[in-house]
Amino acid sequence: MKQPLLKGAALIAGATLFAQPALAAPAADAVSPGTAYILNTLLFLIGGFLVMWMAAGFAMLEAGLVRAKNTSTQCIKNIGLYSIAGLMFWVIGYSIAYPGFAEGSLGLFGIADFPYAMQGVGAADTDTGYSVASDWFFQMVFCATTASIVSGTVAERVKIVPFFIFVTVLTAIIYPVVVSWEWGGGYLDSAWGFSDFAGSTLVHSTGGWAALVGAIIIGARTGRYGADGKVNVFPGSNIPLATLGTFILWLGWFGFNGASQLAMGTVGDVSDVSKIFVNTNMAAAGGVVVTIILTQVLYKKADVTMALNGALAGLVSITAEPLAPSVGQSILIGGIGGVIVVFTVPLLDKFKIDDVVGAIPVHLFAGIWGTLIVAWTGDATFVGQLVGVLLTMVWVSAASAVVWLALKYTIGVRPSEEEEVSGLDHAEIGVEAYPEFART
Amino acid sequence: MKQPLLKGAALIAGATLFAQPALAAPAADAVSPGTAYILNTLLFLIGGFLVMWMAAGFAMLEAGLVRAKNTSTQCIKNIGLYSIAGLMFWVIGYSIAYPGFAEGSLGLFGIADFPYAMQGVGAADTDTGYSVASDWFFQMVFCATTASIVSGTVAERVKIVPFFIFVTVLTAIIYPVVVSWEWGGGYLDSAWGFSDFAGSTLVHSTGGWAALVGAIIIGARTGRYGADGKVNVFPGSNIPLATLGTFILWLGWFGFNGASQLAMGTVGDVSDVSKIFVNTNMAAAGGVVVTIILTQVLYKKADVTMALNGALAGLVSITAEPLAPSVGQSILIGGIGGVIVVFTVPLLDKFKIDDVVGAIPVHLFAGIWGTLIVAWTGDATFVGQLVGVLLTMVWVSAASAVVWLALKYTIGVRPSEEEEVSGLDHAEIGVEAYPEFART
Amino acid sequence: MKQPLLKGAALIAGATLFAQPALAAPAADAVSPGTAYILNTLLFLIGGFLVMWMAAGFAMLEAGLVRAKNTSTQCIKNIGLYSIAGLMFWVIGYSIAYPGFAEGSLGLFGIADFPYAMQGVGAADTDTGYSVASDWFFQMVFCATTASIVSGTVAERVKIVPFFIFVTVLTAIIYPVVVSWEWGGGYLDSAWGFSDFAGSTLVHSTGGWAALVGAIIIGARTGRYGADGKVNVFPGSNIPLATLGTFILWLGWFGFNGASQLAMGTVGDVSDVSKIFVNTNMAAAGGVVVTIILTQVLYKKADVTMALNGALAGLVSITAEPLAPSVGQSILIGGIGGVIVVFTVPLLDKFKIDDVVGAIPVHLFAGIWGTLIVAWTGDATFVGQLVGVLLTMVWVSAASAVVWLALKYTIGVRPSEEEEVSGLDHAEIGVEAYPEFART
Repeated sequence: MKQPLLKGAALIAGATLFAQPALAAPAADAVSPGTAYILNTLLFLIGGFLVMWMAAGFAMLEAGLVRAKNTSTQCIKNIGLYSIAGLMFWVIGYSIAYPGFAEGSLGLFGIADFPYAMQGVGAADTDTGYSVASDWFFQMVFCATTASIVSGTVAERVKIVPFFIFVTVLTAIIYPVVVSWEWGGGYLDSAWGFSDFAGSTLVHSTGGWAALVGAIIIGARTGRYGADGKVNVFPGSNIPLATLGTFILWLGWFGFNGASQLAMGTVGDVSDVSKIFVNTNMAAAGGVVVTIILTQVLYKKADVTMALNGALAGLVSITAEPLAPSVGQSILIGGIGGVIVVFTVPLLDKFKIDDVVGAIPVHLFAGIWGTLIVAWTGDATFVGQLVGVLLTMVWVSAASAVVWLALKYTIGVRPSEEEEVSGLDHAEIGVEAYPEFART
Repeated sequence: MKQPLLKGAALIAGATLFAQPALAAPAADAVSPGTAYILNTLLFLIGGFLVMWMAAGFAMLEAGLVRAKNTSTQCIKNIGLYSIAGLMFWVIGYSIAYPGFAEGSLGLFGIADFPYAMQGVGAADTDTGYSVASDWFFQMVFCATTASIVSGTVAERVKIVPFFIFVTVLTAIIYPVVVSWEWGGGYLDSAWGFSDFAGSTLVHSTGGWAALVGAIIIGARTGRYGADGKVNVFPGSNIPLATLGTFILWLGWFGFNGASQLAMGTVGDVSDVSKIFVNTNMAAAGGVVVTIILTQVLYKKADVTMALNGALAGLVSITAEPLAPSVGQSILIGGIGGVIVVFTVPLLDKFKIDDVVGAIPVHLFAGIWGTLIVAWTGDATFVGQLVGVLLTMVWVSAASAVVWLALKYTIGVRPSEEEEVSGLDHAEIGVEAYPEFART
Repeated sequence: MKQPLLKGAALIAGATLFAQPALAAPAADAVSPGTAYILNTLLFLIGGFLVMWMAAGFAMLEAGLVRAKNTSTQCIKNIGLYSIAGLMFWVIGYSIAYPGFAEGSLGLFGIADFPYAMQGVGAADTDTGYSVASDWFFQMVFCATTASIVSGTVAERVKIVPFFIFVTVLTAIIYPVVVSWEWGGGYLDSAWGFSDFAGSTLVHSTGGWAALVGAIIIGARTGRYGADGKVNVFPGSNIPLATLGTFILWLGWFGFNGASQLAMGTVGDVSDVSKIFVNTNMAAAGGVVVTIILTQVLYKKADVTMALNGALAGLVSITAEPLAPSVGQSILIGGIGGVIVVFTVPLLDKFKIDDVVGAIPVHLFAGIWGTLIVAWTGDATFVGQLVGVLLTMVWVSAASAVVWLALKYTIGVRPSEEEEVSGLDHAEIGVEAYPEFART
């Protein structure tokens, strides 16, 4: 998602297209500007609905990995957060993410007019080379993804009202600020040449930091860690649902990474999108195979939830640069994502950080890995990438901590222990997920 | 879906494209007629498969909201109705929906050659500006959607044979007649300037009236309403499945509304499709947030099934006019859809109308709301819209009543009370949905 | 999928496009080569992600049709096989499938450079008329489909390590060899004019033979066939999940068949894709309606799993030639697919061949039917089609037998009877699918 819409300025690719199509491509490959506009827009629309579908993927993954007594809560959290993200990204998020930083400004915080006006886009906005509304839609679903990541980690012990308040701030301010630094042309982009094609850091690590800080401040689920240091396993209640969620996410990721090419109105762009599809798929495949082999070797059993998280870690790992690597490199990058999952999931438990679905290893640790490796595969420096990782850590952790702590000491974030033990569905929703199925 | 295929006449948009592309758009935006044909067709194909996918959404929503003993029945009803709708819309439905009303005719009923011949379409039918088969496919999935709405309301107490017979008549005749009045260029279109972009009335209210009449004639589920006026709650057996169904429907709605633009072969059309995507999403988001807040405030618990229906009501509400409103208006329109759901779901129970999944509030009441509000946001009069609503009510209610009553007094629509209590899966299908899970 | 990428040679359609666009289409329909390249590539990408999604469909179908104690195993098998298929098709499969047979060679086995290099494709490879990476992606997901078919039949009694080894050989060698004979321009294509548009034989029968041989060599599930010849029914544990899987497969099939047109850069091609969508849908609808009527008449109960398999059999039946038939013919072809399912599912049990999900009737028997009927609807001879069916039978059966037997007599394919009875999830995965739901 290098250089999407800079307000008031024509998109570089779009501008090129319109100014000099004959120079941009050999005559045989020329595409008329009108056709390119339609195709660029279509990429945003297809990519957008695929990434929107990831909201369902997170919902199913999380509904399958929590205990049955918290499943309805997880369902409403997921459909609620997707809705809030859309509203907040319209009200103010987009205007913070793409503020149109003035030259010479540090590029750390800016804000454009809000709520973001898309009224005029029915009439074609041909200067941009694509429909502004299609781009907004595509950007919005990324914002929602960030919030989805948090809901998995802090599941089973956060009340829905404070959770939704956190999501509101995350999608209105915390995430958009990070986006502004890079895709909005701000500090990381201008000062460090930071590179994050589709959001290993901007989306996944942002969600991951917010989740990690939340897990620490909120604390572990009641009974998760015994006094003797024993970790009590709370197995997921519905594995096929979690599997479905993972497949949905894998499917959606073709939109997430592929459409982050931001254009398919030229022969070169659509070829790049194709290569991104292949690399994205192969990184996920690498993550799955590695986790299956590792868990089979280490534990003599192939762990299905590890395999699912292996797929996701592979996907997150390739997200910072899904175009430049060869197929072999993509498999390797994704495979190492799988290794990270296998070894860091138990590590978090050592520190008594209770991550219900494994979102921190998948989205944060693999996101960092994916971001740093761009120094090898892509057009970036290790230092620049590290600065991006660290700046995101500092901002997202600090801002999230402020919000979680404010919630904790005002309305409270946790249900009573009694409510938690009886299940949030009973306490918060009043609708059981599986009212007819007897419990073991 | 204003003015889709009028048989024997070139589509207005298509004709413009072919006759005078240079005038229709500034030179920079020109798209060749061949390219426009491909892109228009592609919109129908993508929109078509997204709306086809909604059949799965209804199946999951309903499978999740019925009791476990009726889940297999609901599954076969949904895959069956989608299949029947396809067959009947080919045999005769399409020919009734698009009869090519002669000038001066009242435009209330007509019929073209049937079964609808698509044999010639392999050879490109370039006059239309799109593939005729792609348009038929897109129209067919709308017909199936109408039938899906009915199956949810009358679930758990209708035998499959009468249900499938009803679906046959609905998709062959009842729904196509309504379509002919508006999209087929008939009475509502020519005499009243009725406006229904993607079918708040034509699809959703039609399904809703058929469902309402069915619910009244068939009667409530055994034990639903106590002698003392008490409503016995029969909770849905699988909430994550219902959540999945809602997400599927939301995703499919981008095709439902977006592709009802009927063209993306111009810069203006694809920009309109993009705006429709945004408005559709935001109306659903408005519906969700409103239902969560309202149920939290009213009942101190956020009701997950209400939130799911809030999303759907938001979607139905924006369907009559998803292009003209601003983003803010869309949120408002969808949010009021959510209000309607929260207040009319209990209302139906007051009248002992037993709507298992809440399809009447969602599809009928929000459909009427969405249709009437076009007088504010779109290009229509309140009276014209009201006439459309009322005419649809009269025709669909009367025709549905005839069919349901004929079934009731011939082969019968309900299983015996004993069969109903033991579950339709046992009586009708012989395959339990969850044979291994013990019941509470 | 007639004539996809022949390495070293320009695709016929692409070559035509580039050499003489003005001659290929009337002036009004002309599409510039660059635009055609983008649209052809886009077809592969959309078709590719839809077929990728079928991997989730198989996973859900199988997870729903096995007993709960084997559900997690089925989940990991499905995500694992999709991953392995991707890796192996890259390492060597594609190079075997499209070896570029020399003229005069028999066309039975060849191999090109491997692993398949897609590094150069970021730069547009305009001679082909589409992105090479997009074509590879589309071909890869077909390879994965073949493996998915096997996993359903041999479910519940194969350990995961031998299963994954079999998948490795199947996707690396067995399937690619079959593909090379036809889509790779080999023996069946050059010597017999064999016709298999999207893979009734190449994909579905190949998977079906591998499954059949596996079922025979591995043997039936413990307790499936009583000493007295009685068949013990092991009902599927989650019917809505199986229904969801079927809907996913139906949706994916629009990509499977539609994108096998291999181009949509001309008005004629996109019209053909549209007709394929319609025929594909109607064949499935025919399969569903026929199975519902037949089971209702024969058993007085409409069998939901039969209806699901009826949809799939209809889809498999139309896959060998989804373009040429009329709509009526498509319904008939699919409907006969449904008949095949109803009568051959019990037949297999007579021979004590234990096919857990009914994949052999659906993919093998309906695949043969679909292949042979092309002699009526398409451009092929009955003898040519029969030779294709038989050659595939001989090769796939023999090669599969070698692999299954080698596994059986080395590492073993079955868990101990005790492990099988307690469930593979316990023995192999250590993660139960539904740990909280009490069993009946």
